[in-house]
Amino acid sequence: MFKEHIILRIPGPTPIPPNVERAMARPMVGHRSGEFSKEFAATAARLKLVFQTEQDVFVLAGSGTAGLEAAVANTVSPGDTVLICTSGNFGDRFTKIAKAYGANPLVIEAEWGTTINPDDVRTMLGAHPEIKAVFATHCETSTGVLNPIREIADVVRPTDAILIVDAVSSLGGADLPMDAWGLDIVVTGSQKALMLPTGLCFMAVSEKAWQRVEQNANPRFYFDLRAYKKQLAANTTPYTPAVSLIYGLQEVMNMIEEEGVQNMFARHKTMQRMVRAAIKALGLRLYTEDAISSPTVTSVYPVEGTFDPEQLRKVLRNEFNIAIAGGQAHMKGKIFRIGHMGYATPVDMLQVIAALEIALVQVGASIELGAGVRAAQEAYLQKQEVTAHV
Amino acid sequence: MFKEHIILRIPGPTPIPPNVERAMARPMVGHRSGEFSKEFAATAARLKLVFQTEQDVFVLAGSGTAGLEAAVANTVSPGDTVLICTSGNFGDRFTKIAKAYGANPLVIEAEWGTTINPDDVRTMLGAHPEIKAVFATHCETSTGVLNPIREIADVVRPTDAILIVDAVSSLGGADLPMDAWGLDIVVTGSQKALMLPTGLCFMAVSEKAWQRVEQNANPRFYFDLRAYKKQLAANTTPYTPAVSLIYGLQEVMNMIEEEGVQNMFARHKTMQRMVRAAIKALGLRLYTEDAISSPTVTSVYPVEGTFDPEQLRKVLRNEFNIAIAGGQAHMKGKIFRIGHMGYATPVDMLQVIAALEIALVQVGASIELGAGVRAAQEAYLQKQEVTAHV
Repeated sequence: MFKEHIILRIPGPTPIPPNVERAMARPMVGHRSGEFSKEFAATAARLKLVFQTEQDVFVLAGSGTAGLEAAVANTVSPGDTVLICTSGNFGDRFTKIAKAYGANPLVIEAEWGTTINPDDVRTMLGAHPEIKAVFATHCETSTGVLNPIREIADVVRPTDAILIVDAVSSLGGADLPMDAWGLDIVVTGSQKALMLPTGLCFMAVSEKAWQRVEQNANPRFYFDLRAYKKQLAANTTPYTPAVSLIYGLQEVMNMIEEEGVQNMFARHKTMQRMVRAAIKALGLRLYTEDAISSPTVTSVYPVEGTFDPEQLRKVLRNEFNIAIAGGQAHMKGKIFRIGHMGYATPVDMLQVIAALEIALVQVGASIELGAGVRAAQEAYLQKQEVTAHV
Repeated sequence: MFKEHIILRIPGPTPIPPNVERAMARPMVGHRSGEFSKEFAATAARLKLVFQTEQDVFVLAGSGTAGLEAAVANTVSPGDTVLICTSGNFGDRFTKIAKAYGANPLVIEAEWGTTINPDDVRTMLGAHPEIKAVFATHCETSTGVLNPIREIADVVRPTDAILIVDAVSSLGGADLPMDAWGLDIVVTGSQKALMLPTGLCFMAVSEKAWQRVEQNANPRFYFDLRAYKKQLAANTTPYTPAVSLIYGLQEVMNMIEEEGVQNMFARHKTMQRMVRAAIKALGLRLYTEDAISSPTVTSVYPVEGTFDPEQLRKVLRNEFNIAIAGGQAHMKGKIFRIGHMGYATPVDMLQVIAALEIALVQVGASIELGAGVRAAQEAYLQKQEVTAHV
């Protein structure tokens, strides 16, 4: 029943606003036409607001991984030593990409569910002054932690290394002021907090990192950011852009500008607090501590043996058309993850929590119906008071 | 923020499924083209499933009121005595239409929030054998009662009078088997349980009533059902049909056939039970008793002086983008109404109840957060058990 009524509460893709869908249904045009070029360049420029940067924001047709690869391909030369800070599945992907490009990766590994310690980064940079680049993940989607990028940047900035940040599942949902924090490359995807379908990645590059791009000896063509920079100056892209997605992005930028980025961050924080309060009230265990958790996704694991998270997901999907995510890699089948980003509001959290409670009862968990919703409602009302007192 | 994200929980219009929206975006065609005619006739025929009739279902471009007027214009001649059974605002509309057509209306008035007593209809028909037609409202949208149409039909059937039923806010959401119950004219609109935008009305006519249509002396042109019958036999309409809405209707019929009408009724009953359980648990007063309440809309009034329903509606609309309805006529400002029909499911009820609880706190009502949600969750799970034991 209602096959298309899938309520996406996974950490991306996220629901698409109807005005964005309509914008994407605009007739196709020649992507080299003057009219499209003007719209493209204006839209790309508006992304600076979300990146909080004065630098160009490049728009590539590709997934988030394409953006991460572009970051590596443009800044890492074969034989370069790089430092990978990994706290989960997506941190590990950086290692794979770096290896594919012939780099020599050193790795700082934080236990899943915890964050990178900036002191460890300082120690490594001190011991290995040959490190050319540090890779870090802002929101580690596989666990729901938010790494201390600001503190890591403070450590990397005084060195010759550049800091490359995977902000795929955070940008737009969590504050990440690229210029203010001195980040060198920030990469994100279209299908998370930015409310678009999959298919685009966005990235910005600092002046410090740009020197690397110019000097880099790696073979690259589609991912050559020099070509993107040159063509952006001419209001276009080096290769065929995803025209419909750009039309959708225009509409997304209208929405973001109307809401205001700080309000957007605050909305995500409210949803985060509601979901976490509910999980605690239901007696389930949060995979991450409050202080290091992401405003965009929350991971939960059951008290050992009380229920099967995969069974829970099936009930939510089959009975309520609600999609939540499972665990990845070694956490597959052990946790579930609720996405709360993009085109979502506090009432959407009330809905997913209320349905989750029913599903928990149905898979045999011993919980008090309504307790999670009440905690989320209280968290919401608390936020109201906070706002009122400002 | 999210200006288009309006969650419609009013008793119509109701949310439009995305597949219906896409269907309505099909290119316009000539409405006299053979291709469209074939699609139109096939779609109109599929409506018989919802009316539970073997009769033709006529599709008029117009509102529900247009359908009610068509019923009057085709069956009531000037000077005819008719019996209007009114239990609220929409019953009253029948009186106005009947007067506009020169009829002499007798009226049975049930107090708002209660239903028509079939014995009163029997008494009136006995005392006034000149009554040509009886008008009754299935779901009285202004109060949320469901009138006993089956019992009224049992009273009217043996007489010469015909029974005309306003099923605008019930057809598709509540069981109304036209042929089995011997109803003469059933009228509904597109924007309620049938998941379409406003703009269409549907009506079917029994053989008994068709004789009246043939004999009727009233001036009529756009509403002349003889023209609709004749043209439907030729797969078309007498006047320009609303092509996009017909495309949407095709998709709606796909959905209804896939879900099954009995499942559709059961879904509405589940939503009704959830909302009513929540309202009781929150200590608010239901405007109608359980036994006479509609599966499509629930009216609630606050304990005197505890909060202002209009203020409550404003909070829900401004803070949560949720639209619920207020009272009509003399109940304006005194009650609020929650629509639960069409493209809506039990999780949507959990959402509106959870948001309602927050809004109640915000307008100063003394309620226990989560209590309504819990009652609704229990009502939902109870339904599951009922199903399981069948």
